[in-house]
Amino acid sequence: MIAVDWGTSSARAYRLGPDGTVAERREGAGGILHVPPGGFPAALDDMVGDWLRAGEARVLLSGMVGSRQGWREAPYLPCPVGLDALAAGVIALPFEGAAQVRLVPGLSAADASGVPEVMRGEEVQVFGALRETGGDAWLCLPGSHAKWVAVRAGRIAGFSTSLTGEAFAALSAHTILARMIEGRPEPGPAFDAGVARSGEPGGLLHHLFGARALGLFGRLAAGDGASYLSGLLIGHDVRENRPDGDAPVDLVGAGPLMTLYARAIARCGGRARLCDADAAARGLALIGERLAWT
Amino acid sequence: MIAVDWGTSSARAYRLGPDGTVAERREGAGGILHVPPGGFPAALDDMVGDWLRAGEARVLLSGMVGSRQGWREAPYLPCPVGLDALAAGVIALPFEGAAQVRLVPGLSAADASGVPEVMRGEEVQVFGALRETGGDAWLCLPGSHAKWVAVRAGRIAGFSTSLTGEAFAALSAHTILARMIEGRPEPGPAFDAGVARSGEPGGLLHHLFGARALGLFGRLAAGDGASYLSGLLIGHDVRENRPDGDAPVDLVGAGPLMTLYARAIARCGGRARLCDADAAARGLALIGERLAWT
Repeated sequence: MIAVDWGTSSARAYRLGPDGTVAERREGAGGILHVPPGGFPAALDDMVGDWLRAGEARVLLSGMVGSRQGWREAPYLPCPVGLDALAAGVIALPFEGAAQVRLVPGLSAADASGVPEVMRGEEVQVFGALRETGGDAWLCLPGSHAKWVAVRAGRIAGFSTSLTGEAFAALSAHTILARMIEGRPEPGPAFDAGVARSGEPGGLLHHLFGARALGLFGRLAAGDGASYLSGLLIGHDVRENRPDGDAPVDLVGAGPLMTLYARAIARCGGRARLCDADAAARGLALIGERLAWT
Repeated sequence: MIAVDWGTSSARAYRLGPDGTVAERREGAGGILHVPPGGFPAALDDMVGDWLRAGEARVLLSGMVGSRQGWREAPYLPCPVGLDALAAGVIALPFEGAAQVRLVPGLSAADASGVPEVMRGEEVQVFGALRETGGDAWLCLPGSHAKWVAVRAGRIAGFSTSLTGEAFAALSAHTILARMIEGRPEPGPAFDAGVARSGEPGGLLHHLFGARALGLFGRLAAGDGASYLSGLLIGHDVRENRPDGDAPVDLVGAGPLMTLYARAIARCGGRARLCDADAAARGLALIGERLAWT
């Protein structure tokens, strides 16, 4: 089977062996924003056409490729949702040639106040990252839109999204804080200072101005601004959304954000564990096993 | 006396009568960002040269004109600071011709966690806005950097700044929320919904994503996005920083933000009162009275 985690800005394709393990992997040409209208079959062929011609006949897609801006809009299944229900919601896409192309739906939920929540693609990563079947877990998927996911008895019970990554990008580039931003956030004392600050009184908007004031008084070096701001925002996200008690948080994803979230969770009194970076491939394999391919 | 409230992006000049009342007012050519290095005497002459030639010999400046990027850097006086101490900290600026040009210093403070706070210009507006001499008051000066000021026994005891206005500008233009922003924030049901949301669990970063999700599900019209986001941010600012109990908040400033803050304070259970929009002129008059002009 070919598994593709096809997001807004990037795509990852995996060729899976019969047991679901990753035989080969590649980065695709780009996310759905790079695909012209009607261009998804051609983009898929560009990405994995050689694998198809080598005999792979099953293709399973997940992510924003199933959004209104993607190949076709797939429904959102309301939580709670388990693996079987997610597989039952998979839809078929038209594709010229012998391959069967299928698309995983997204999930919807509501937060404690009834405000809607949505995800597309993360649900597959979550099922791929679970350490046990049928159990409880807390997961966090850092990113532009960071997701905190509660799993109960093997099903995704609900989730909460924070605009943490996008807020970092907008605030670091388009406010007075831009003057003190150099380079990228690093795990270290400045990041830790930002995380600690996130637990002090006054709220995030006050803490953002405080970063400027610390810089003005020489108490925060320009080279430390990005790390401090990252720690401040991730710290607020973690304090508001990490599970109560001592349940570990399984971090899903790849790249430097994983280290930063793990550090922030630990400094806020929690425990974080890093998951396999190929969680999407494993999740798609688990769903693919449940489909009636013709 | 000529009083000039000279900020980063704009300048307001007042010609005051002998009793301190405003005889004439004008907007200057622009804030300090528009003045080239060494160009402040000429910029002042452009702004009020005709008043000087008509016999005014005393000029008192406040605001960011006293910052490192301004005419000359004036010190920050540490809080608490009363009117007499502020007047004692005024410095003289060199100016060709008969006029005496003086500059009001800024104030510094520390928040409850020891993080520094600074203001330049707002201290003059606060003293100009006070309804009684020697008493206690809470004031709020909405803006890009919103200030909450505590006055005790007639002195500015401390203050707290929030990056509320700049955060609104950056988030509304440079995140996924930009798709649902049309026009300017208006006081109305969408603003109120944002204020109410600011009191729900999950924190600001989660609430920001929720605005997007509400739009996606058709529960927030595109025309309401700016008002909702403004209510959300101002609501967070108000909840974190308004005084406890039922002390009224005196709002200082001008323009649409005053109405929005008054509304948010009321909806968060507080009381707001609008102050005279010429608070800066009155404050500069009160300081000018205390100076030994030659």
